[in-house]
Amino acid sequence: MATNDSLAALNERIAAVNDVLNAASVLTWDSRTMMPPGGAETRGHQIATLTRLARDLLLAPETAAALDAAERAVADLPEDSPERRIVAQTRHAVIHHGRVPASLIQERAALRTVAQAAWIEARAKSDFAIFAPHLEKTLALSRAYADCIGWSEHPYDAMVSIYEPGETARSLKALFSTLRAGLLPILDAARSRPAPRSDFLFRDFPEEGQKAFGLALAQKLGYDLSRGRLDTTVHPFEVSFTRNDVRITTRYNRNYLPASIFGTAHETGHGLYEQGVDPAYTRTALATDLVGLYAVGGTSFGAHESQSRLWENHVVRSRTFWHLHFPELRCHFPQQLADVSAEGFYRAVTRVEPGFIRVEADELTYDFHIMLRVEIECALMDGSLEVADLPGAWNAAIARDLGLTVPDDARGVLQDVHWSTGYIGSFPTYTIGNVMAAQIMETLRRNDPSLEDAVEAGEYAGLAEALRAKVWQHGRRFRREELLVRETGRGLDPTPYLSYLAEKYAA
Amino acid sequence: MATNDSLAALNERIAAVNDVLNAASVLTWDSRTMMPPGGAETRGHQIATLTRLARDLLLAPETAAALDAAERAVADLPEDSPERRIVAQTRHAVIHHGRVPASLIQERAALRTVAQAAWIEARAKSDFAIFAPHLEKTLALSRAYADCIGWSEHPYDAMVSIYEPGETARSLKALFSTLRAGLLPILDAARSRPAPRSDFLFRDFPEEGQKAFGLALAQKLGYDLSRGRLDTTVHPFEVSFTRNDVRITTRYNRNYLPASIFGTAHETGHGLYEQGVDPAYTRTALATDLVGLYAVGGTSFGAHESQSRLWENHVVRSRTFWHLHFPELRCHFPQQLADVSAEGFYRAVTRVEPGFIRVEADELTYDFHIMLRVEIECALMDGSLEVADLPGAWNAAIARDLGLTVPDDARGVLQDVHWSTGYIGSFPTYTIGNVMAAQIMETLRRNDPSLEDAVEAGEYAGLAEALRAKVWQHGRRFRREELLVRETGRGLDPTPYLSYLAEKYAA
Repeated sequence: MATNDSLAALNERIAAVNDVLNAASVLTWDSRTMMPPGGAETRGHQIATLTRLARDLLLAPETAAALDAAERAVADLPEDSPERRIVAQTRHAVIHHGRVPASLIQERAALRTVAQAAWIEARAKSDFAIFAPHLEKTLALSRAYADCIGWSEHPYDAMVSIYEPGETARSLKALFSTLRAGLLPILDAARSRPAPRSDFLFRDFPEEGQKAFGLALAQKLGYDLSRGRLDTTVHPFEVSFTRNDVRITTRYNRNYLPASIFGTAHETGHGLYEQGVDPAYTRTALATDLVGLYAVGGTSFGAHESQSRLWENHVVRSRTFWHLHFPELRCHFPQQLADVSAEGFYRAVTRVEPGFIRVEADELTYDFHIMLRVEIECALMDGSLEVADLPGAWNAAIARDLGLTVPDDARGVLQDVHWSTGYIGSFPTYTIGNVMAAQIMETLRRNDPSLEDAVEAGEYAGLAEALRAKVWQHGRRFRREELLVRETGRGLDPTPYLSYLAEKYAA
Repeated sequence: MATNDSLAALNERIAAVNDVLNAASVLTWDSRTMMPPGGAETRGHQIATLTRLARDLLLAPETAAALDAAERAVADLPEDSPERRIVAQTRHAVIHHGRVPASLIQERAALRTVAQAAWIEARAKSDFAIFAPHLEKTLALSRAYADCIGWSEHPYDAMVSIYEPGETARSLKALFSTLRAGLLPILDAARSRPAPRSDFLFRDFPEEGQKAFGLALAQKLGYDLSRGRLDTTVHPFEVSFTRNDVRITTRYNRNYLPASIFGTAHETGHGLYEQGVDPAYTRTALATDLVGLYAVGGTSFGAHESQSRLWENHVVRSRTFWHLHFPELRCHFPQQLADVSAEGFYRAVTRVEPGFIRVEADELTYDFHIMLRVEIECALMDGSLEVADLPGAWNAAIARDLGLTVPDDARGVLQDVHWSTGYIGSFPTYTIGNVMAAQIMETLRRNDPSLEDAVEAGEYAGLAEALRAKVWQHGRRFRREELLVRETGRGLDPTPYLSYLAEKYAA
């Protein structure tokens, strides 16, 4: 990157914001992996203070002055140069946060604490009524927030823009309509076939063996342990504190082997993205989500999910992978997997089985869970669905799409934490990640058939290097859609995803 | 605590400072226990930014305004009320930091990084010349720092005031003169006796057993694991992120059992102090070192050390303790300790053996290591000792006090990290802790003989409760000397310490 004094001054301001947000991420990681239970309340204050300070730093007059000067200094550089993008993204974030009053942020934060406690109780008792009034308030504050940020067609557009800039209620509706039409026949065909044997997945798999296999798997895919670590948690996640310290977590279900294997592969995909960001972007706006106030190098939630899904589903949940690596897994569990073949294992972990729970869904039903949530979020935001009618709408959609009768709210509308934390508008990014992963893989395969040969030989460095060059290194320089056009020649396109699923789940 | 709007506004400002400093502590803990090596450089930036922000928050006009208003609002309360102390300590810190220019802080921080690297290299090569120029600079910046803060008799006074307010070069000289005179005959007598058997301490003690015993020991002493955790590190320490999350670390030397046992007891003592601070003081100035910019509930470094030394030496390194608990230790190591009695173990862990290394020193020689360092720090600060002459002065003092010939600088002047980090003036607090521990124990025993009976029966809750009531709960409300006068009727007095050592180390 070219530098000059003005840009350097802005970068120094942003570096402090990045430091503070990375600190908040360390505190969050710690709270979910290491913190004793007594620390929860004061930890909440600490994270809230850091987030507030990051916003204050961004809105400070010193930042405004540095931004004005830097804007003039980079005006002659190409529009998509890192320097111009640093300035443009900071300007965008300053405008964004300038529109949201501090009082609204405080109200949202205060509500989050109460709403999460209510959600936990509601889910435990499977009683939606306990959570309903808090969801009402969350929606009211989300509408107020959307109005501050501004929107033209649909209030949902403002919320989605935080996680996946460029997507709108309208664009998602179009995407989902294509997906639904394409997915249903593949799903129907898969369901009409007899289920493969999968009993052995539920045997007793001690944690040590799962952990050893998972850690070796992460490294096999290219995860660098000198800049990372793998820990145990209740809800797996990846988090980075700059590209130099990128951590992943997983959970070990002793009686269901696939959870930790594919969970680890998924988080490794997220981790590879962060570890692969250009070192020159460290502590800059190109490795900081200044709108979401989150120190992350990936350019959108959807782009991030594309990398986790790519490694999880296209690489690790593939026939090739298990024909190559099943023997290694069996080394850890010789008794438990004595009567299982590589092909049998692959069939078991790709079986299609509609269920109530999103996070347990197979590849063919997963997007239906997402589409249902996005439909509902849109309707709640624009008022066409009342909170009181939400469980009914949920259960009807599950019956329509998956042919299942939801037995209770805990396994229905109360299953996800998102709404209780005030996250409205992040769900679409899961499906966008699926679509984008297939689109990128299709292009990579077409442009360089030798990549496929290497993957089939169990060599993943070439694929990682291609993704580093085409996606990871750019950090937040390019918007997701821009990245796709650069690398695949077109914007988000569900065709490769549907082809991939059709081929994989054909008899 | 009484509150009013003005004090509440000040407390809110300080709560943010406390949050930021606690966040910095979490980042430090993580860097020493969990962080992958790649994260070191950016982590340094993150911690530096947080510390700078805490200072900025303290010096912000909003804090000044809140402080002025609070000062007026609490004027009629007793001088030693928590409210008045919050205001007075904030005022003191604002004046302190207002005197130190940001440029000097940056210079010190920049030097620290370079000086530490040089020290590591110098120690590895046992070559003082590599570190000498950095120590010169450290001293120059320390003198400049002292001049900013202000001092009347000796520049060292300004440095000590950061760690142990109230102590000066003069007061330490007087204290050390008494100690030296009292310690030498006890040490001479101890050295004239034949050394007890201690070979069994160096056998093979696998980490699991040490860890299990250490964790049980910490809990036996009253350490609350719902607000704490014990981890492994290279240099053991205690750190708190409010009283609700107080962590201790230790190291396990497989071939020297006492290191982890007494190390864990020591850090537990620190941890008990922090866990015992009045909950009402959480996130206030009474649980924040606003001068040192460190979120800590103990009132001075010396007071903190008094609690760690009290539990380590007066409780755990006692004949009573091992006659009670040696059988538990032997359960973990039945083979290794088969030929050892409780009395034999006690004698081995209280053997007197002058050595070169401070952190390995026994109770009778430890303070000589401290007195030597403080003498040298004073002389370096006032220029009566040149850096070039430092190794010679060091080696001469070790020969004079301990009768040993220092073999190389690594085991001499280069052994401690302190000077390379810019810490000048913190060493005296170790000896002050020793003195204070004995003074408090003497008073507790005299005032309530039943405490002694309970400790002799292996019941430590009564002692912990007495210390909570007399020391821990007050947090930083009372200065160290004030605390001593309140609880023991007099200021720091080495007499009980010398009596304790004379009795313990008499034949």
